[in-house]
Amino acid sequence: MTAGAVPQFTTRSIFGPDACFHHVGLGVSSIRAADPEAQPITNRTQRVTMAFVEVDGVTVELLEPLGEDSPIARQIAGGPALLHLCFEVDDLDTALESARDAGFHRISAPTVVPEWGGRRIVWVFSRELGLVELAERLS
Amino acid sequence: MTAGAVPQFTTRSIFGPDACFHHVGLGVSSIRAADPEAQPITNRTQRVTMAFVEVDGVTVELLEPLGEDSPIARQIAGGPALLHLCFEVDDLDTALESARDAGFHRISAPTVVPEWGGRRIVWVFSRELGLVELAERLS
Repeated sequence: MTAGAVPQFTTRSIFGPDACFHHVGLGVSSIRAADPEAQPITNRTQRVTMAFVEVDGVTVELLEPLGEDSPIARQIAGGPALLHLCFEVDDLDTALESARDAGFHRISAPTVVPEWGGRRIVWVFSRELGLVELAERLS
Repeated sequence: MTAGAVPQFTTRSIFGPDACFHHVGLGVSSIRAADPEAQPITNRTQRVTMAFVEVDGVTVELLEPLGEDSPIARQIAGGPALLHLCFEVDDLDTALESARDAGFHRISAPTVVPEWGGRRIVWVFSRELGLVELAERLS
């Protein structure tokens, strides 16, 4: 076997120096089928049932539509679908400024999610990089 | 603000005790537009141009279709799309056995990717959890 090129990794901060990857969202038709041991809770704010599962070094947020009008229902019609990346930040407003410099725009107002310990989150989107959730650390 | 429920995290190993999350694949129409500083290389095996970028604590593999018949061309027609999770493992065959127990099946034969330092990879899919790349560590 001839070893070929080894890709170079580059590094980039988009959401600020305190930003840290938290999880990847994975839409599924059934959390129970995806992971019988997951502990789902109902998130009426986002109209999903959700469960966090650590799988071999990555936190996966399983998301199951809560009703046919759930925002994720259409996206998983064809099967399981990776939906977003989430980064934890110290302060949403500061992170939003950094995100804007990288071409992300806010697609929702910051929202408190009681089902996630009262965290504030905000959704941002970039035409080049897609959908990202920013979640403020709980102090 | 009333803090609500705090979701329980559960832990699960799917690909074996030596498996470790490596990257998330993100299909984009243009790596240059997504990240001007990325160092793309051509991966003719998978018919994509690819670049690894570490973004705030997560390794993102940017994937741009190499031609209209690239396997990812259709998936990014509507915009950037998260395509797969990749886990690094010591041995593909052992990892495949673990994956099978969790409902994953192989959708390709193990392949050497010269463009990724000669690594062996294999693609697996689960109807509940979606598409995963397993990549053997280089010894």
